[in-house]
Amino acid sequence: MKIKELQTILKEKKIDLFLAVSIDFEKPDPDCTYFAQYKSVGVLAVPNNKKPMLVVPQMEAKGAQHKSIKVKYPKEKKPLLKFLAQELKKQNIRPKKIAINNTEVTLQLKAILKKTFKATFVDISSEVSKLRTTKTKEEIAIIKQGYKISDAIFQKGIKQFTRGKTETDIAAFFQYEAKKRGCDLAFPVIIASGKRAAEVHHFPINKRLLKGFCVIDFGIKYKNYCTDTTRTIFLGSPTKKELQTYNRVLEAQKNAVGACKAKAKAADIVSQVNKDLGDHAELFTHGLGHGFGIKIHEQPNLKPDSKDVLKENMFVTIEPGIYKEFGIRIEDGVHITKNGHEILSKFPKKLITIR
Amino acid sequence: MKIKELQTILKEKKIDLFLAVSIDFEKPDPDCTYFAQYKSVGVLAVPNNKKPMLVVPQMEAKGAQHKSIKVKYPKEKKPLLKFLAQELKKQNIRPKKIAINNTEVTLQLKAILKKTFKATFVDISSEVSKLRTTKTKEEIAIIKQGYKISDAIFQKGIKQFTRGKTETDIAAFFQYEAKKRGCDLAFPVIIASGKRAAEVHHFPINKRLLKGFCVIDFGIKYKNYCTDTTRTIFLGSPTKKELQTYNRVLEAQKNAVGACKAKAKAADIVSQVNKDLGDHAELFTHGLGHGFGIKIHEQPNLKPDSKDVLKENMFVTIEPGIYKEFGIRIEDGVHITKNGHEILSKFPKKLITIR
Repeated sequence: MKIKELQTILKEKKIDLFLAVSIDFEKPDPDCTYFAQYKSVGVLAVPNNKKPMLVVPQMEAKGAQHKSIKVKYPKEKKPLLKFLAQELKKQNIRPKKIAINNTEVTLQLKAILKKTFKATFVDISSEVSKLRTTKTKEEIAIIKQGYKISDAIFQKGIKQFTRGKTETDIAAFFQYEAKKRGCDLAFPVIIASGKRAAEVHHFPINKRLLKGFCVIDFGIKYKNYCTDTTRTIFLGSPTKKELQTYNRVLEAQKNAVGACKAKAKAADIVSQVNKDLGDHAELFTHGLGHGFGIKIHEQPNLKPDSKDVLKENMFVTIEPGIYKEFGIRIEDGVHITKNGHEILSKFPKKLITIR
Repeated sequence: MKIKELQTILKEKKIDLFLAVSIDFEKPDPDCTYFAQYKSVGVLAVPNNKKPMLVVPQMEAKGAQHKSIKVKYPKEKKPLLKFLAQELKKQNIRPKKIAINNTEVTLQLKAILKKTFKATFVDISSEVSKLRTTKTKEEIAIIKQGYKISDAIFQKGIKQFTRGKTETDIAAFFQYEAKKRGCDLAFPVIIASGKRAAEVHHFPINKRLLKGFCVIDFGIKYKNYCTDTTRTIFLGSPTKKELQTYNRVLEAQKNAVGACKAKAKAADIVSQVNKDLGDHAELFTHGLGHGFGIKIHEQPNLKPDSKDVLKENMFVTIEPGIYKEFGIRIEDGVHITKNGHEILSKFPKKLITIR
């Protein structure tokens, strides 16, 4: 995505080259995925006025084929960055100023880069983050399709809450349905029942589901893009008070979604939620939401002290939650449109009770 | 694990404090997981002569409880590192020299650390890697148990290769069985059939399994520790030549495992494999193996140019493979013991054919 926009920034800033390097198989550089749809070990090099190049190990070359980016690999066992430097020289590219993303590059990698290229390095993290924050038509279509898949899995998954099941049984089912459709998870599935839901990021355990509220927080990666949806259901029969508490969170969530539009201030939406939650506001112990895309947590940030302002084609989650000896969280993915917003998670939010 | 050993190193090097910081939910610092069995956002601080402390966001506090490390969280919404600095001051710890792991710390994080602590920072990556490379009794027991679980899943999974199944069907099944047992994956399952197996890190696709060799590369995380096993099976009836080719790889793999013992040089084992593969050696396009533990790829490195020497209680994979218009790879996890080695993957290696 947006390689041309990146090159424009490079030219404006008189930067010769942008580099995104994945040296760790477990932590691929998200900019490689974003700009080159590649998520294994490799180096993406984007010169400011020539064609970009993706350098990968020989063993990854077949999987790395790209419709518009040239893929190269060293035939001898040569370090990728050394090989890249040679390839650039062949094209008469001798970069003096190289842009990197400081939120991704480790101190170790920087040391290797400095050895390989006699250049000055500048941080381009905020510019790249800005590019990634507002989505293109192509990205919008992918994310919407991701939510359709996620909704279908919620529909099937909700039927799994039968007697005797454990939290991990349910989590395994959601994960299975994602993989069956060729999707990885955006983050480990959270199935948190009863008092266990008091933990916001509870890892499901191999014990029977507890009665009471049960939080289901689930997201997939579809064509490298994340989805993120949370529903809270009730196992057993809720008391009137429990139902009221749930509806309080639901109202706050709906109002917050309603406030989502271009030019809205993130901090204003958060303070509205706190107002709506009233007495319960002190039980709301996390941020209201976050942008998402290649990564599950991207810009903008919906926290009380956020200075972020919503813009057209941003994608954010809206996920108020309250936690005490129980947990309730309701979360939608929201697309900020020209005149308002579109809710991506279509799965119903009225409290589902399973007896 | 090994917090005392870490503190000894700190004292020897006159370092006041070790810090491992996870700021990115998607990329937890593996040293946090290793030393504190914690894998979400947070900061582990290990002073050289006082008790370690784990600082986490309020929302993670319940899940972070630890039997020997004190867990603290800021009640107001204060940055974790600022809060940590205050807590250290309360204990009269004013670090002048702080150790960090340069392979994990990003340039952005380093900038925040420098703002928070007026100290000099030193890289301790090679010392920490050394600690993590040889496993304790507790770790050995965990890893062995992980392989038992993985073997059981292979036993069930192999029965899934029935007519009409897709690669993602099989991958989803392996993943489901792992999650049912409370385990995440060490890496995305590889199911690569027919010519698709020519890609070493093939992502399974939603298309029917192709006839011919099929590579199954699967590993779980059990109690934070990885397993890693590959088997190649045959869908259909192999020709005599195909069977010979498979057995050639198998012999090379067995010989390499046989050479695993304390004091063996990694490079020697690799060159033995190349000798055993003979004509096929040029089709062997990746490293022979790698250490594993908290991360799937750790030290030592089993590559032709490696200078690593095996030591007691290291854990390595031995995984020769050859790739052309097909793929064959056979991989075991191997525990280097006092007098030799123990193979952790017990699932049979004789070619399984499914007609």
